[in-house]
Amino acid sequence: MKQESVLVVGSIAFDDLEMPHGTYEGVLGGAATYSALAASVLGPVQIVGVVGDDFPDAHLDLLRSRKVDTTGVERVTGKTFRWRGRYSEDLASRTTLDTQLNVFANFRPKIPESYRKTPYVLLGNIHPALQLEVVDQIEHPRFVAADTMNFWISGEPVTLAALLKKVDLLIINDEEARELTGIQNLCKAAADIRRRGPTQLIVKRGEHGALLFDPHGTFFVPAYPLEEVNDPTGAGDSFAGGLMGYLARNHSAAGSPHTMRRAMFYAAAMGSFCVEKVGPARIEELTLQQLGRRLDDFRALVDFGGTLTLSAAEA
Amino acid sequence: MKQESVLVVGSIAFDDLEMPHGTYEGVLGGAATYSALAASVLGPVQIVGVVGDDFPDAHLDLLRSRKVDTTGVERVTGKTFRWRGRYSEDLASRTTLDTQLNVFANFRPKIPESYRKTPYVLLGNIHPALQLEVVDQIEHPRFVAADTMNFWISGEPVTLAALLKKVDLLIINDEEARELTGIQNLCKAAADIRRRGPTQLIVKRGEHGALLFDPHGTFFVPAYPLEEVNDPTGAGDSFAGGLMGYLARNHSAAGSPHTMRRAMFYAAAMGSFCVEKVGPARIEELTLQQLGRRLDDFRALVDFGGTLTLSAAEA
Repeated sequence: MKQESVLVVGSIAFDDLEMPHGTYEGVLGGAATYSALAASVLGPVQIVGVVGDDFPDAHLDLLRSRKVDTTGVERVTGKTFRWRGRYSEDLASRTTLDTQLNVFANFRPKIPESYRKTPYVLLGNIHPALQLEVVDQIEHPRFVAADTMNFWISGEPVTLAALLKKVDLLIINDEEARELTGIQNLCKAAADIRRRGPTQLIVKRGEHGALLFDPHGTFFVPAYPLEEVNDPTGAGDSFAGGLMGYLARNHSAAGSPHTMRRAMFYAAAMGSFCVEKVGPARIEELTLQQLGRRLDDFRALVDFGGTLTLSAAEA
Repeated sequence: MKQESVLVVGSIAFDDLEMPHGTYEGVLGGAATYSALAASVLGPVQIVGVVGDDFPDAHLDLLRSRKVDTTGVERVTGKTFRWRGRYSEDLASRTTLDTQLNVFANFRPKIPESYRKTPYVLLGNIHPALQLEVVDQIEHPRFVAADTMNFWISGEPVTLAALLKKVDLLIINDEEARELTGIQNLCKAAADIRRRGPTQLIVKRGEHGALLFDPHGTFFVPAYPLEEVNDPTGAGDSFAGGLMGYLARNHSAAGSPHTMRRAMFYAAAMGSFCVEKVGPARIEELTLQQLGRRLDDFRALVDFGGTLTLSAAEA
């Protein structure tokens, strides 16, 4: 069966990470980078983003070696987007120390001709007006997913509302869901968001898993419990990439109520690999076999034998 | 099949609850009360605790009407244990405003003759020396579960260590697991605790679900997502009661690796009912039919069709 491609649009960056176990300067980062590398474990990926003239060819070579088409990576004069953050001792929270948008400040995503029929589109967290421009450049996308953040929720509500009418799936965290709706209860907030456009909503809760709200009901996937967590950077973007990669790989089963639920496990598995090493190091070396084994472990984590009858005698 | 009983030992109290939606004075409370009412939905329960002469007969009548044997409730001169707490606007945290131990200060659990062969024993959060006294009074208990808290972890480490050698299951929250072991990572902390005695450990994470660590591996159950949460008081105790009630009801399937995992769903379901109304009001009216329907909904929440193969074509 022909494998469908995933188009990923978003930031490509250098991250300076101040972790309890050390400081790591100039690590390859950015939402699009993490999502593309994660999705590419499952199938072909196309990436759209911008880098400066300081961006090493080796990073682009890495992406290409992982089946990521980099035709859409624009290189312009100036410096690449750079983010510096400090993590708390338990890695549960982080503080942004510095954001240098650099060439990303004037980013206007241009979708190459060869990407314009790509059916699965992941809009990383950029200005909703740019996300809209991307959607308009794709011919009949089959499935559009978007991330956003508090900055756009409070600053660009009208444009964000227009975007929501064009996306099938919104992927945000619980605080963003509450801020977007002004509703504290997640179930009610989710219903409110789904009335605004996206028929499907994923609410990420970091180390506490993620919830899917779609026409088939509510579904929950836990975060995979790990013995070693080294760097949460990019886990949410890897989650989104894993999800889209699985959906594209299984496009023929898109109508099944279980397809998106299974995709949630692939998403969470990808997030769990991402945090094992600093930067995207674990994702960029991940094999399909390793992913399959993590899925087996994941299945065991939630296996209760299928039935929940009142007594074994009734089973 | 004969239904086995659950013995519950712990506090019986009046709670003064300052909630965002109002203040509720003198609500029936206490860990043993919540656990006993929850377990009694699934089968016979025996309760051991102490109340003062201000405790209304109507509360004891209520327990008895719910199949809770109150032979072990001692009534002594003085006032009943009273706790006053204030919840945050989102109900996610609470502050203790006042604790009046009253007759609970001198509580020495006396196990009535008629309780001494009870196979399932739930030791609520009391001094570990008293928990040990209870275990010593039971003849060959089949399964002993215990709760504890930071106060005993830091204040009574030696006695708590002795208790851990006598229990099959420890039920604590994530912060307590970290404090007990000094280990930040939950997977490693769980392994450490299980080396100290209990072969099974449940780590509760409130609205984020609970993890089971046992000889069959790690298992996760989410919290059931609710549209209305009114009072989290007693949710953890209802969780423990639901768990023990299910285990006692299914004692013939105790050897199955799925029994404890299914019990986790019953526990979480009971916690989800508990928070729907102020105090134990929802648990005390709960029917087996309503519980069964919640379990159906719960099963749908985690249903992904059973397999997690890489593509539908491979399924």
